[in-house]
Amino acid sequence: MDSNFLQRLITPAQTKIAMLIMDGLGGLAREPGGLTELETARTPNLDALAARSALGLTVPVGPGITPGSGPGHLAIFGYDPIRYEIGRGALEALGVDFELGPDDVAARGNFCTVDAAGVLTDRRAGRLPTELSRELAARLRTIRLDGAEFFIEPVKEHRFAFVMRGSGLGEALSDTDPQRTGVPPLPVQALAADSERAAALANRFITAAAGLLADQQPANAIMLRGFARFPTVPSYTERFGLHAAAIAVNGMYRGVARLAGMTVLDVPGVTLADEFSALERYWPEFDFFYLHVKQTDTAGEKGDFDGKVRVIEAVDTLLPRLLALGPDVVIVSGDHSSPAVLKSHSWHPVPTLLCAEHVRADGIAEFGERACARGSLGVLPAKDVMPLALANAGRIAKYGA
Amino acid sequence: MDSNFLQRLITPAQTKIAMLIMDGLGGLAREPGGLTELETARTPNLDALAARSALGLTVPVGPGITPGSGPGHLAIFGYDPIRYEIGRGALEALGVDFELGPDDVAARGNFCTVDAAGVLTDRRAGRLPTELSRELAARLRTIRLDGAEFFIEPVKEHRFAFVMRGSGLGEALSDTDPQRTGVPPLPVQALAADSERAAALANRFITAAAGLLADQQPANAIMLRGFARFPTVPSYTERFGLHAAAIAVNGMYRGVARLAGMTVLDVPGVTLADEFSALERYWPEFDFFYLHVKQTDTAGEKGDFDGKVRVIEAVDTLLPRLLALGPDVVIVSGDHSSPAVLKSHSWHPVPTLLCAEHVRADGIAEFGERACARGSLGVLPAKDVMPLALANAGRIAKYGA
Repeated sequence: MDSNFLQRLITPAQTKIAMLIMDGLGGLAREPGGLTELETARTPNLDALAARSALGLTVPVGPGITPGSGPGHLAIFGYDPIRYEIGRGALEALGVDFELGPDDVAARGNFCTVDAAGVLTDRRAGRLPTELSRELAARLRTIRLDGAEFFIEPVKEHRFAFVMRGSGLGEALSDTDPQRTGVPPLPVQALAADSERAAALANRFITAAAGLLADQQPANAIMLRGFARFPTVPSYTERFGLHAAAIAVNGMYRGVARLAGMTVLDVPGVTLADEFSALERYWPEFDFFYLHVKQTDTAGEKGDFDGKVRVIEAVDTLLPRLLALGPDVVIVSGDHSSPAVLKSHSWHPVPTLLCAEHVRADGIAEFGERACARGSLGVLPAKDVMPLALANAGRIAKYGA
Repeated sequence: MDSNFLQRLITPAQTKIAMLIMDGLGGLAREPGGLTELETARTPNLDALAARSALGLTVPVGPGITPGSGPGHLAIFGYDPIRYEIGRGALEALGVDFELGPDDVAARGNFCTVDAAGVLTDRRAGRLPTELSRELAARLRTIRLDGAEFFIEPVKEHRFAFVMRGSGLGEALSDTDPQRTGVPPLPVQALAADSERAAALANRFITAAAGLLADQQPANAIMLRGFARFPTVPSYTERFGLHAAAIAVNGMYRGVARLAGMTVLDVPGVTLADEFSALERYWPEFDFFYLHVKQTDTAGEKGDFDGKVRVIEAVDTLLPRLLALGPDVVIVSGDHSSPAVLKSHSWHPVPTLLCAEHVRADGIAEFGERACARGSLGVLPAKDVMPLALANAGRIAKYGA
């Protein structure tokens, strides 16, 4: 279904939609015949909600495709994640509240350590303290080169967002991080003719940075990767008629939400409970809320099966606070799977629940992978969840006579 | 799957397909955890048929989209309902057996009542008797204007089909019905430059009609809405190699069937039993039959849960007459859902059953929303039902060597 088709049917309403995303929610059993993380978790509140919901398994990008966080989120937000591609660099810049513009090419920057011969000895410069990183970023900001303006925004530890601004800069640029030590960082290469000028500028910047950092240990060089321009994505207001807010602690998710035109809310701390507090505080002000739980994915990527179970149980305990607000539509899902046994993102479809007054409830009183496989939503593209949520929120007009 | 791809694989056969469409079939439970209309209905014949069938839930247009009758029918007929869009006016004209041509712009007409100041006091002119409507339509036929020929066909009570015929008339025209009384009817406005001439003609016609009807009470004016040209849709013969017939009492459904190139059969009365009698009478002459049951939707739109249950039970009682004819393939489905609790069409997927000798039966001896959610057809686009029916009818050749 073409997004323009949906857009013309969007109709205003006073309803509210809450989307609770547990990052990397989908899992796998530890042993054949066993239970997944979600199936293992004791989740009385999610199970009770499931009983009143339509269940299904969402496919973020396509069958067999393991999504990164960007495409996973774009999909559950209702965008075609193949059409709208967000580079890592653009996400990093969005995550530190950098206002990317149409003349910007962003990259993810790392401080790193090289030896006297220029060979990489530590890709993360010993994960140097954020405070030091901040000072070094200020030093890099003094670099002036003809043809572009440069912005350096510290992120955390050795990471920073790098942005070059100049008209007609291409984004088809190779990474300089060789992904291993014992070799020198790579030069930026233009992967298309329109990006040659950008490649030259980035290389000149890297050289200048090495000069400025030569007296530093361990952060005596930088690497850049994930060069990307800012994609143009129609906002939630344009596309769905929603005044949307995002609650997320980590930069990247705040960045994707901002890309979709959501207002990124202040969270009074970094815990799950703090996120639910933000939800309660801002509830009257918006009609769509995205609440992001990072810790499920963190545990999954670490291979910490039990840890992931505990995070899911913690979310289950907080769920009544969301339900008490009286949302018209509740979505509980993930942006992708991160099974602890794989210690990584995976292609597996994601358990998804949609609850609303007029949803056709499946009567399955369990929220888990196999329960969702029996649900009436079937196996569906993640981008189809938002149209269903909007319909249940009374926000889509009838098509045709 | 592209329709041209399917078309080149179509192969002739002597088999017969029967498609029984209960309008607005899908429903919702009255209370959480309850049964839908279809689940409530006592349907021994449908249940026995379900046991030998593949079951699924069809999505007429797309996730979350509530279809009108036109798109809902096009979809279950096997057409892409977004690609082929039928306006209300075109449907109305088709429904009264008007042969719409490429130079025609049709609209749905209403006789209405206005006061001395031109303010609308009754949008339906007291639902004036069809006989009077017929006389007034004859009067409107005397209107002659340069630039177009006009056709007026009475439909029922206050309704008539309006067609203007002239080369190069656009269809981007606004409705004149303000959808409420206490204000004057609106003028027709051109919504695109190519429709300005058509707008002027329609407004001149409305003025002339008001002159001719000035002495009438209550029908002293007309309103026009749903302006539309006749879409070009490949016929069932071209597309599926089928010699198709339609059995429907109501104009709009006869119209959509005619659009698909079906022969619209005479029904000896207006009851469900009359429709099944027409099916029996014409059975030898065609190889595809569409039989339309309107009353399920009528009850659903009225909010009459029990009435909808009774209609489904009545259809179940008649079903053996259809099965006795020995169809090679039977489809039982709906064009959309019309849950009584919503009193309207809705976006919910539609219970669907496909029975044939070589269907892979699910062995689920129940025809209902949740039974179909467990079926092997899964959640599928309504337009995919016809290819499955054709395959089961031995009408699709192997693709590739």
